[in-house]
Amino acid sequence: GEVEFFPNISKIEYEGPSSKNPLAFKWYNPEEEIYGKKMKDWLRFSVAFWHTFRGDGSDPFGSPTKQWPWDDGTDSLEMAFTRMRANFEFLKKLGLNRWCFHDRDIAPEGRTLEESNANLDKVVALAKQLQEGTDIRPLWGTAQLFKHPRYMHGAATSPDARIYAYAAAQVKKAMEATKELGGENYVFWGGREGYQSLLNTDLERELNHLGQFLKSAAEYKKKIEFDGVLLIEPKPQEPTKHQYDWDAATAIGFLQKYGLKDDFKLNIECNHATLAGHSCYHELEVSRINGVLGNIDANTGDAQTGWDTDQFLMDIAETTQVMLSVLQNGGLAPGGFNFDAKLRRESTDVEDLFISHIAGMDAMARGLRNAAKILEEGTLPSIVKERYASFDSALGASIESGELGFEELEQEALRMEEPLPASGKQELAEMVFYNSI
Amino acid sequence: GEVEFFPNISKIEYEGPSSKNPLAFKWYNPEEEIYGKKMKDWLRFSVAFWHTFRGDGSDPFGSPTKQWPWDDGTDSLEMAFTRMRANFEFLKKLGLNRWCFHDRDIAPEGRTLEESNANLDKVVALAKQLQEGTDIRPLWGTAQLFKHPRYMHGAATSPDARIYAYAAAQVKKAMEATKELGGENYVFWGGREGYQSLLNTDLERELNHLGQFLKSAAEYKKKIEFDGVLLIEPKPQEPTKHQYDWDAATAIGFLQKYGLKDDFKLNIECNHATLAGHSCYHELEVSRINGVLGNIDANTGDAQTGWDTDQFLMDIAETTQVMLSVLQNGGLAPGGFNFDAKLRRESTDVEDLFISHIAGMDAMARGLRNAAKILEEGTLPSIVKERYASFDSALGASIESGELGFEELEQEALRMEEPLPASGKQELAEMVFYNSI
Amino acid sequence: GEVEFFPNISKIEYEGPSSKNPLAFKWYNPEEEIYGKKMKDWLRFSVAFWHTFRGDGSDPFGSPTKQWPWDDGTDSLEMAFTRMRANFEFLKKLGLNRWCFHDRDIAPEGRTLEESNANLDKVVALAKQLQEGTDIRPLWGTAQLFKHPRYMHGAATSPDARIYAYAAAQVKKAMEATKELGGENYVFWGGREGYQSLLNTDLERELNHLGQFLKSAAEYKKKIEFDGVLLIEPKPQEPTKHQYDWDAATAIGFLQKYGLKDDFKLNIECNHATLAGHSCYHELEVSRINGVLGNIDANTGDAQTGWDTDQFLMDIAETTQVMLSVLQNGGLAPGGFNFDAKLRRESTDVEDLFISHIAGMDAMARGLRNAAKILEEGTLPSIVKERYASFDSALGASIESGELGFEELEQEALRMEEPLPASGKQELAEMVFYNSI
Amino acid sequence: GEVEFFPNISKIEYEGPSSKNPLAFKWYNPEEEIYGKKMKDWLRFSVAFWHTFRGDGSDPFGSPTKQWPWDDGTDSLEMAFTRMRANFEFLKKLGLNRWCFHDRDIAPEGRTLEESNANLDKVVALAKQLQEGTDIRPLWGTAQLFKHPRYMHGAATSPDARIYAYAAAQVKKAMEATKELGGENYVFWGGREGYQSLLNTDLERELNHLGQFLKSAAEYKKKIEFDGVLLIEPKPQEPTKHQYDWDAATAIGFLQKYGLKDDFKLNIECNHATLAGHSCYHELEVSRINGVLGNIDANTGDAQTGWDTDQFLMDIAETTQVMLSVLQNGGLAPGGFNFDAKLRRESTDVEDLFISHIAGMDAMARGLRNAAKILEEGTLPSIVKERYASFDSALGASIESGELGFEELEQEALRMEEPLPASGKQELAEMVFYNSI
Repeated sequence: GEVEFFPNISKIEYEGPSSKNPLAFKWYNPEEEIYGKKMKDWLRFSVAFWHTFRGDGSDPFGSPTKQWPWDDGTDSLEMAFTRMRANFEFLKKLGLNRWCFHDRDIAPEGRTLEESNANLDKVVALAKQLQEGTDIRPLWGTAQLFKHPRYMHGAATSPDARIYAYAAAQVKKAMEATKELGGENYVFWGGREGYQSLLNTDLERELNHLGQFLKSAAEYKKKIEFDGVLLIEPKPQEPTKHQYDWDAATAIGFLQKYGLKDDFKLNIECNHATLAGHSCYHELEVSRINGVLGNIDANTGDAQTGWDTDQFLMDIAETTQVMLSVLQNGGLAPGGFNFDAKLRRESTDVEDLFISHIAGMDAMARGLRNAAKILEEGTLPSIVKERYASFDSALGASIESGELGFEELEQEALRMEEPLPASGKQELAEMVFYNSI
Repeated sequence: GEVEFFPNISKIEYEGPSSKNPLAFKWYNPEEEIYGKKMKDWLRFSVAFWHTFRGDGSDPFGSPTKQWPWDDGTDSLEMAFTRMRANFEFLKKLGLNRWCFHDRDIAPEGRTLEESNANLDKVVALAKQLQEGTDIRPLWGTAQLFKHPRYMHGAATSPDARIYAYAAAQVKKAMEATKELGGENYVFWGGREGYQSLLNTDLERELNHLGQFLKSAAEYKKKIEFDGVLLIEPKPQEPTKHQYDWDAATAIGFLQKYGLKDDFKLNIECNHATLAGHSCYHELEVSRINGVLGNIDANTGDAQTGWDTDQFLMDIAETTQVMLSVLQNGGLAPGGFNFDAKLRRESTDVEDLFISHIAGMDAMARGLRNAAKILEEGTLPSIVKERYASFDSALGASIESGELGFEELEQEALRMEEPLPASGKQELAEMVFYNSI
Repeated sequence: GEVEFFPNISKIEYEGPSSKNPLAFKWYNPEEEIYGKKMKDWLRFSVAFWHTFRGDGSDPFGSPTKQWPWDDGTDSLEMAFTRMRANFEFLKKLGLNRWCFHDRDIAPEGRTLEESNANLDKVVALAKQLQEGTDIRPLWGTAQLFKHPRYMHGAATSPDARIYAYAAAQVKKAMEATKELGGENYVFWGGREGYQSLLNTDLERELNHLGQFLKSAAEYKKKIEFDGVLLIEPKPQEPTKHQYDWDAATAIGFLQKYGLKDDFKLNIECNHATLAGHSCYHELEVSRINGVLGNIDANTGDAQTGWDTDQFLMDIAETTQVMLSVLQNGGLAPGGFNFDAKLRRESTDVEDLFISHIAGMDAMARGLRNAAKILEEGTLPSIVKERYASFDSALGASIESGELGFEELEQEALRMEEPLPASGKQELAEMVFYNSI
Repeated sequence: GEVEFFPNISKIEYEGPSSKNPLAFKWYNPEEEIYGKKMKDWLRFSVAFWHTFRGDGSDPFGSPTKQWPWDDGTDSLEMAFTRMRANFEFLKKLGLNRWCFHDRDIAPEGRTLEESNANLDKVVALAKQLQEGTDIRPLWGTAQLFKHPRYMHGAATSPDARIYAYAAAQVKKAMEATKELGGENYVFWGGREGYQSLLNTDLERELNHLGQFLKSAAEYKKKIEFDGVLLIEPKPQEPTKHQYDWDAATAIGFLQKYGLKDDFKLNIECNHATLAGHSCYHELEVSRINGVLGNIDANTGDAQTGWDTDQFLMDIAETTQVMLSVLQNGGLAPGGFNFDAKLRRESTDVEDLFISHIAGMDAMARGLRNAAKILEEGTLPSIVKERYASFDSALGASIESGELGFEELEQEALRMEEPLPASGKQELAEMVFYNSI
């Protein structure tokens, strides 16, 4: 018989809001229909392999704290197989069918690139076998281009051309692995693509290299007929002092400059939004109106700390805003919600892995219910619509059509009474929003 | 005879670094040649009319504190004339020949747009007369589209179409006034072009309106053959929660999206950089490598406060970085350095107006001397150049030429020894930098 | 007959959570009993005269936007009377019986202190008359020691001894006015008690002056037998670069140093907590466990802006945390919840004044309901209690009693097995918390 | 013969400001007299063992990058001996005679506390032997109470009483080791003494435990006649969300509350000041005027990042402010300047260890020269002194003496003319400051 990793945990079931069972869903009811789709189709959740199966609780001031019964803490291939099996049991018990991975999380780095690739092939083969007969597939894959010292100055933006080549080889292989497993997206988080100091950096050259690298990635994707979506994940800083994909607007500008706008979408992480000085809602909306909202890394930071805490997002006001964006985007598919969130260092029980994911899923499910209610009820959308009504006809419509130049507009302005605008009704909008959650 | 506004202040002279005279330059020696140009040609300083002649010392918690002998605190046309005369005496005593203005700073708002325009015409006529026989000209002009309640929801991005028209009329007139006075640039700071809450905002529509507005501005500029440079001034927030021109990268992305990249450059304000989570040097370098570094608002904030303090920039490490960007940009002309900086609320002596500008000019002059020394001495530039040497030939050159796809790069990577990159030498770079200041 | 200020607004009634009426309470039901007291007795709400009746919508970049029908914008004594009448109608229509004021908000500054005092007497007399036959009383009064230019360097901490004296006179009078009106508390917010630059500041001398000033205030309070509570309101900065009462911990340390701990409690403002890098919950808990939680300024800032936005607090997760502190404090009486919150500059309808207060009251009422549920249900309190159980007996109890020195503890440590602590269960605690709101 | 660790590095010599040699001092000339003392006596520099000999370049997103020739990366006792020998060669080549350590940096953690203690004894014995015949001594020692998982919830503030005992045993031993080596101070940095979430924390109980723990430490110090100074090191957060010793003011308040003010001073770290929202100068001045400025951890953060970067402090404006505080404190002895600063992860040459320390020492030496110049020249001190002159006699002196109550002060205020204070002259003060550096 097979080893069971979570023998004390049964499949997590929906028990409704009145349940006090920490190992049950109170809001996430996958088959229930909300706003025209099943919850599971709006909320395409994914488990992040790195946090859930490789997170060891270490931090800059502390050693590992996790001692999972199945994990010996080594980076052996055997242990890689074991962790992958645990991943699949975890997914099934949570009722999820999506997972995300970096190449080096799931398979150990070898002494050479060739050996690393061979290791990856073996673990991918196991994952594929475990996927068989299930609908479990990667939401996305990616290459880990930030942990190894070779990438200390960047991967595509390293000042050393050999590193650029090495990174290209690694992305090529990771993209192939993602395709092999039926992954729906491929993500680029440029953790080291940035600078620590402008004094020793050729900013222009580094950005050009990054543009070239991503262009080659898009070309290779077409060549191998991988039909997943390529996603850029913005983050302002950490580990670098400045990451080139600072926020959604910066990443979009970059994609435009290098002619890559049609080839990439964005993967928005809420914690990264906070670090960039934005709300998560802002980053989602900027992405949405630019047609590049591709995926969400569902987590949260701490509004008062300046680093990436990657906590499970449980705040229902924020999940409601997130889901407002998602509903207005018509959903995220083929993207979804990846729980790029880690247990607190001090949470050391196996059941904490379940509790945290359940809480994160419930919070997003509750956000979905609230957002649907807001849109269906209609008060908030109509506050917005009416505010801009003057652009729906007459002067406003002519402005939007581009037919009025400054001279015509001046004539209008000279003719009109002093135009005092209507109240912005922000408190009313907030009242309506909070009364819906 | 004419009234003298600063009877106790003589023309400010250069006395060299050993001078203890607060009313003398210690570092700014306008005719001295540095790095191939006269200091005055690198440092095209400008006085900001609004701070220097309209700043009254009020803040969100306090009433005005300034009681200049010539100023009765009213917004009369007579007082506008008086302040303009004071401005010219001030410029001459500082030895400067550039100034910047908003329409509503220099002339009072009337009861109607027509009256406001007539007021502006009168003050512009006086300014033109005062300019005669001098080389004093505006570095730039702009329209004040943020103070009047009509603009409370934005100007180009107001939800009220009438406000858009009114703003267009105001920009048209301000651009004409700038041209009339021989101004070299025209600035757009969108203080209210942003949002206070996403809950009541149509983000997409507002951004489209802003794009349309700027397009019309560029067209009108061509129509009237105003040959100044149009400049966008990024700022992340304040007074809005989010300003659309958040930072340089965001503004550049916006210009690209709306096809305006050839028509606009950027006016970088150091204090705004800080508020956006960047160093001023970063914002300047991002602008420079994108070919849009047009002008600098020379000021500073406080690294520990979250609002725009607009202090005079005196930190020589920062001015040295600023001047490194400027020298590598080949200067800023026709842009320059506008002292968008205000006396502290508690600085209430007339001489403080001079002391602050002298200190600001000296700090930038010292930065120029340091930056020239760094570039001429060559150690820092060569640290950077050598870091990227692997891209100057062989593999690196092929990468930059775009001829290597992921397959070729993988072949390279499989062949090479484990590539460990060289030390980044950041502390050495910092040592060299600080030893030069 | 009397003028009615809000003719279109009836008394605000409780209609329950399903109501869509913006001018009704959905959660605040004053007579309903929660956790052993009536809601109105837990939630001793107060209207802040300055924001609600003197807030004009101006900001550092903008002119006033409010044009209330009863307000001519002047600072006349007649207008002061009118505003006070409007205040009382507003209170009654909201069903509130507490208000807060600064001396100079309710009565105009005169040409001399004597005249200012006379003005204040007249307005206080009117307020007293309006209070008659009602249970309306000030929650607290205070002196405005930050707006007038005389206080630009501070009041008690001004480098000018005359200003110290003037400030003392003003506090004396404001304390008398508060007593006259039956006020229950008196607040010190030291908006200008801080520094703009250490370079021109004698930090030690300023702090000693502040200590002396507050000591005199406490003495005068006793002398006139004013039995209200004296409250310090911490804020980290703005308008100063550094305010001496930075946060709760700093203020408590200050009170201890100057022997004032028994004479003062704290007035915690949520927005100030955010600016100090803390959660509001943190500031409340620090105050509570030090026995100085006296009053709450119920508002919120924006987690991503660095200045005091003084918005109405509507986030129910935060109000639930606030109320957890309050319930564990046994309430706040004789303190309460002052709505130190202002309408957004863009909210210009008279009804917005009501909507904002209703939303703020409902949010706190909902927080009360949630907090009571959490405490009554007991899961969260028991998670905390059990975490510390090892200190309830044996080794832990001996530690708490202070009987074990380092030598005895070393003996214990050498004897014991490697002590690995239990999981912190943070995600479980968050799950329980969010499931209760 | 003995192994030489740095065979290519000779003793670092002073060559003066014009030197371009990165391996020479340009400003630090130890025997030169400045402001009445030798530079080496003002600048009691210390090397931090943990950063310099245990820093491996790992960060939350990256593996180790350092590969020092003498270091095999293991935690063996042999390697501990080797590193200690390298430390002494490093100190001698830099011309320094102070070093700082944690117990677990210099000696490996054993399987039991007994074994850990035995390991420590052995390394301490070697260090003592290496110290013989030199004047090298620890500036301070400390216990590492944050890295091991046993301390994940805190040491003195762990909810588990066993951990409290274990921590006490560890501090006892580390204090003994510090005494044995002739250390002059003992430091408490409570990296885990704080909370991650208030929801699962008993704040009051944890703070009481911390007070008890420090009281026992002070008692044990007296018992063993260790005459070093006990120092608290404030930091606001990281790794905790909130550290109890948030900043200087908070730590001072804590010491007062628990009756520990006479037993402890503060160790101020510049990077921690920044994270707390203060300038380093502020933290030093708050400590100085409270008589608790004991030691400085000389490093810097990045003004735009929210975590502890522990960079070498090279900014001369900041070092000048630091030295102004130190000179006004009459120096720091028996405290000093500990370089709690680490090479950037990307700085991987052995010589970078020297370059960084040289640059840090030079920056502080330059600050000393500047600060002495400012105090000797006298303009800045006299600006401050004159600002407060009104408190030196008459009304002001009476205020300071405490003889005037509110009634007497009101009489003064009613008599006086409107008192408008003098200009704060902040820009003048800044001009004088920057002209001196």
